[in-house]
Amino acid sequence: MKITSLSLLFLFVTCIATANDGYKLWLQYFPFENQAVSDYYRDYLENINIVGTSPTIDVIQKELEIAASGFLNNNVKPSFKHSGDSNICWIGKADDLPADLKSNFGQKLNEIGKEGYWLKYHLGRVIITANSDIGLLYGTFAFLKSIQAREQLERLDVLDNPKIERRILNHWDNLNRTVERGYAGFSIWNWHRLPRHIDQQYHDYARANASIGINGTAVTNVNANALVLTPEYLAKARALADVFRPYGIKLYLTARFSSPMEIGGLRTADPLDPEVQEWWKEKTKEIYSYIPDFGGYLVKADSEGQPGPHNYGRTQAEGANVLADAVAPFGGIVMWRAFVYSEKTPDDRHKQAYNEFKPIDGKFRDNVIVQVKNGAIDFQPREPFHPLFGAMPETPLMMEFQITQEYLGHDTHLAFLAPMYEEVLQSDTYAKGKGSTVSKVIDGSLHNYSLTAMAGVANIGTDRNWTGHHFHQANWFAFCKFAWNPNARSEDIAEEWLKLTFTTDKAFTEPIKKMMLSSHEMVVNYMTPLGLHHIMARSHHYGPGPWVTGGGRDDWTATYYHKASEKGVGFDRTATGSNALGQYAPEIQKQWGNLKSVPEKYLLWFHHLPWNYKLSSGNTLWNGIALHYQKGVEESRENIETWTKMSDYVDEERFKHVLSFLQIQSEEAVWWRDACLLYFGQFSKMPLPAGVEKPAYDLGYYMKLNPKFVPGI
Amino acid sequence: MKITSLSLLFLFVTCIATANDGYKLWLQYFPFENQAVSDYYRDYLENINIVGTSPTIDVIQKELEIAASGFLNNNVKPSFKHSGDSNICWIGKADDLPADLKSNFGQKLNEIGKEGYWLKYHLGRVIITANSDIGLLYGTFAFLKSIQAREQLERLDVLDNPKIERRILNHWDNLNRTVERGYAGFSIWNWHRLPRHIDQQYHDYARANASIGINGTAVTNVNANALVLTPEYLAKARALADVFRPYGIKLYLTARFSSPMEIGGLRTADPLDPEVQEWWKEKTKEIYSYIPDFGGYLVKADSEGQPGPHNYGRTQAEGANVLADAVAPFGGIVMWRAFVYSEKTPDDRHKQAYNEFKPIDGKFRDNVIVQVKNGAIDFQPREPFHPLFGAMPETPLMMEFQITQEYLGHDTHLAFLAPMYEEVLQSDTYAKGKGSTVSKVIDGSLHNYSLTAMAGVANIGTDRNWTGHHFHQANWFAFCKFAWNPNARSEDIAEEWLKLTFTTDKAFTEPIKKMMLSSHEMVVNYMTPLGLHHIMARSHHYGPGPWVTGGGRDDWTATYYHKASEKGVGFDRTATGSNALGQYAPEIQKQWGNLKSVPEKYLLWFHHLPWNYKLSSGNTLWNGIALHYQKGVEESRENIETWTKMSDYVDEERFKHVLSFLQIQSEEAVWWRDACLLYFGQFSKMPLPAGVEKPAYDLGYYMKLNPKFVPGI
Repeated sequence: MKITSLSLLFLFVTCIATANDGYKLWLQYFPFENQAVSDYYRDYLENINIVGTSPTIDVIQKELEIAASGFLNNNVKPSFKHSGDSNICWIGKADDLPADLKSNFGQKLNEIGKEGYWLKYHLGRVIITANSDIGLLYGTFAFLKSIQAREQLERLDVLDNPKIERRILNHWDNLNRTVERGYAGFSIWNWHRLPRHIDQQYHDYARANASIGINGTAVTNVNANALVLTPEYLAKARALADVFRPYGIKLYLTARFSSPMEIGGLRTADPLDPEVQEWWKEKTKEIYSYIPDFGGYLVKADSEGQPGPHNYGRTQAEGANVLADAVAPFGGIVMWRAFVYSEKTPDDRHKQAYNEFKPIDGKFRDNVIVQVKNGAIDFQPREPFHPLFGAMPETPLMMEFQITQEYLGHDTHLAFLAPMYEEVLQSDTYAKGKGSTVSKVIDGSLHNYSLTAMAGVANIGTDRNWTGHHFHQANWFAFCKFAWNPNARSEDIAEEWLKLTFTTDKAFTEPIKKMMLSSHEMVVNYMTPLGLHHIMARSHHYGPGPWVTGGGRDDWTATYYHKASEKGVGFDRTATGSNALGQYAPEIQKQWGNLKSVPEKYLLWFHHLPWNYKLSSGNTLWNGIALHYQKGVEESRENIETWTKMSDYVDEERFKHVLSFLQIQSEEAVWWRDACLLYFGQFSKMPLPAGVEKPAYDLGYYMKLNPKFVPGI
Repeated sequence: MKITSLSLLFLFVTCIATANDGYKLWLQYFPFENQAVSDYYRDYLENINIVGTSPTIDVIQKELEIAASGFLNNNVKPSFKHSGDSNICWIGKADDLPADLKSNFGQKLNEIGKEGYWLKYHLGRVIITANSDIGLLYGTFAFLKSIQAREQLERLDVLDNPKIERRILNHWDNLNRTVERGYAGFSIWNWHRLPRHIDQQYHDYARANASIGINGTAVTNVNANALVLTPEYLAKARALADVFRPYGIKLYLTARFSSPMEIGGLRTADPLDPEVQEWWKEKTKEIYSYIPDFGGYLVKADSEGQPGPHNYGRTQAEGANVLADAVAPFGGIVMWRAFVYSEKTPDDRHKQAYNEFKPIDGKFRDNVIVQVKNGAIDFQPREPFHPLFGAMPETPLMMEFQITQEYLGHDTHLAFLAPMYEEVLQSDTYAKGKGSTVSKVIDGSLHNYSLTAMAGVANIGTDRNWTGHHFHQANWFAFCKFAWNPNARSEDIAEEWLKLTFTTDKAFTEPIKKMMLSSHEMVVNYMTPLGLHHIMARSHHYGPGPWVTGGGRDDWTATYYHKASEKGVGFDRTATGSNALGQYAPEIQKQWGNLKSVPEKYLLWFHHLPWNYKLSSGNTLWNGIALHYQKGVEESRENIETWTKMSDYVDEERFKHVLSFLQIQSEEAVWWRDACLLYFGQFSKMPLPAGVEKPAYDLGYYMKLNPKFVPGI
């Protein structure tokens, strides 16, 4: 007995000391820290009764083996047909429940949905039940998470159904393995080796996503290449779909609108042309011959150079419906992006998607869902919610969040995005009066949508830890949590992720959770405080660029958005300006249009104000801006201090990795602050307030910086 | 006692069953298989006396910790100041040897060179001694390898000095992280994050290379970007050099010849222009201010579009010497590539490097070494040795081998390259009579060179196992072994690598060693038998392309090299043809020029022969070609069978990975065979001999295949 406990002690030490490259994500299954803990859980990990057989059941068994071998730090395989009556884990569909349980549980069982599960302790047994194999898999992951978090099994009673039907990752991955706006290396999809080589990482990807409820993935860039719809690539896509299927994940592909011309040899892609319609039908039939459960198409049309129905004078609905009619017989859907804006910038870009889509509400087929970014511009560090939410009661809308940090510091900046997602989801659209939150639009309850979905633009690449920054794994995790339940809370997500990924020790989780929860606001502070937006460098979007002006199109510049001059700064989107505000509900117009009630975080998003405008703090606008930048810098330094104290709780490899990224972030926070304050200071002509550090260089220095080979373009 | 041995048994099982992505390469340090083995080695892993302190000594300690924790499967740290007299491992420089040992060993100690080591068992102690810290590190790795191979410590008596001074990897890695001719993902050098983030993989790279004696690395592509010589990038390069230094690895950079114009603002890069000379001197001084032990420059000039001294009517020596003069004060060298050939194809490309360099033998500065590819064309599956070897007694020549498989099936084809390296190194140049092997040219002994070096074009990328194919790790390993000792034997290398990487079990190592040792010849058989060469697809070099013709330059086509017509096939390089053969020693001219004595493996490299020419086997040339192709295909199928039987000896992840690659290889062997035989069959007009399978498609099918997004361009 003594030997065993000693050996367990050593094994625990190993787990901290051993190199950890982060590949295992939140599925670390660290060994139990002592014999008592091990004794408490061991039986439920070794004695298991699984009813049923299917590829998904195989995945469940495999996961329980991996978990047991991790927790117990050995390779004893669980028994999967254990017949005991207590201290066992029983896994099976509700229909297969032993008669005594079924009659006991009857009422509650009806609450379990198609993909939901019930995890319940009952008379010495842990019961995981569901109506589908995938529900059982989700329940199994919930069970293992409760062990990772060292929860008491006797208290288990979790009945959880996803609130959104389609929970999807969007990969902006090109066929040559570059990733548009990807900062964690290159694409994990090795199209060249597919379909003949199935990399273990494809399984690990599906497993990680299934563990947090993802059930769909669009593996190709929305700036699409029609080649992916040719037989050569469909065979490759099929190989991925075959890997994903047992994990409950459907494959979607991006469809280039001009495909009928590019790979079909037609002379037009006009959606009203019968030949074009026929081509999509045949092509879709072909896809389903490869992938019988193909999820459907994701389409970016008439935007940033992509072809679309506008080329033929057709509406977005006419474009979408052709593809929708093609997938309908097979149960597929079309996700049609609302990110449409003119190349000619005739109007505030903020307004264009609304103006384009609002009038065609109800004109889409039933199997079309319009995919709307969280804000009307483009994934800025902070945006007010998109005015389309609440404005299309007759057309299902889905949320598109960006997980990859195109505008939030790329790979190296810690920005836990859950608070940003939560802020948007909990925003009130007032579409049906107070309480009409965006989350209710998205989960379909507000307008009784027939389809519900949420998409996240993935931050996954070939980096050994998947996401570049170790903490960006938390953004992948957080997105999935909101996709499962748009009313999830950031704090719970952060805490769960930290426990699963690092340790359950509160001496670590509490300060680091705090660091995570304030990190998004910190980035807003040092990048775009008080509603500033789109002031990053051109093209690669790396670093500040408030001076960006000129070039092909106004709305790809910074000056278009901040409109700084000696008179002031900010974009007047009230009735005296572009009146984008007019696209929101009257309650919001009133609140945000009034300087007394507009939240300061949206101030310069909607208002153009003089530099000496008085903020609620009593500071002038100029001083307020400067102090926000300074605050962001200071917070970034505090994070370094906080993290430095954590070396006892984290393995050396991840500790150092995070530390160097926090240091880069802090240096770049200074870069943002100094460049932006020097630039805006030219107009304000006011001195920096007390407490704001003087820039080390002059404006010319920052304007001349020209970083090469920035990733993600 | 019973518990302990039982637990060890389980741990062994774990090590097979646990996922192994191959990242640990040949440094697996698998746990000991039973208590007896553990008891035998344990003391020497736990009781260690290291004399000295330095960053390299720290690396040694760290390595011993990793090894002990692997072998003993726990985390007990060795004691590094152990003072016992027996059952200990003593590590220290020869000068620091205890007096009794020093007097005993005196004579032998003098044989240890600058980087060599002596690993010796003496009266209960394992002694690792050397004249430098890096020698101690090499000795430590040798000690750990002997444990991995389960050798008897009492027999240890290995005094080993590297035979070549500079053992260098060349990375054809671009600053945007693409890798020219790279098939294992993208560049592991994340220039964007450097110098501020030091990835753990840089340490792991240095460690792996040090473990097999590499002491230099050129991290940038020979098709060079001058930006790498700017301060921004020098700071990044310095960060890498700082990581590599404790591992005894020097950093080299590729120098673009036109850098004085591109980043220096000069109007010329003429090597005889004083301003240009001054520019290189200042630039080099600047580099040494960043990297005090900078190794020097690697230059590709006047080749395939690269600028060079030809642009100014200067010789290669005049070009090289400018750079050599710049690095000389700092002890640096210039590696000047001999891969120079005209864009106008005025003559057999085979002859051009010789014609360019032979006349300037002796015109180079002492710190220039000319880097010569193993053969005169370009890393073909098989080439006779380059005629420059033996032809430049007054100029140090170094070998350039390609480890990455540009012409040998890219990522998926198993081709263990040691036999190919060995064949070249053991070729007799007859430069100073019989026995003047290429290895003696390279190790400097034939011509008494002042500098010796060997370079290998790396096959390393972001793939989780570093090299794409798990077995391509063996090519990285083998290159390093030959760089250490050009007279190494392929069989020993294969056996050592297999033991370190998979298992010492002969039931695995024997059949798999056989598979490895025959694999290069197998690839030659199904790609380019009997001296055929350069018949691969254009540009990406993926798959067969014997029909490639036309385009900008003749010597980038297949037809230029095989010259197939109804009259026959092959390149007449005898006196009746291009007389490239005339560049070799008279003994070789005689042997290879005569159809009776030319080795059949070089037959069509030097001779143009009719299809019905009789081979030594009695077969016609056509039948011989066809039977070679068929043989290659059959061998590729046998490899699948062999590997399939090995599932008990390999973890599931690597087993499956290798299996799918062997299957791809076998399919592509068929592709090569069918495409080439259909193509050449047009001219031979002879039927396929018995035993050769009929192609499944016609020639047009193969010619139309057009794979997209092939990696490595």
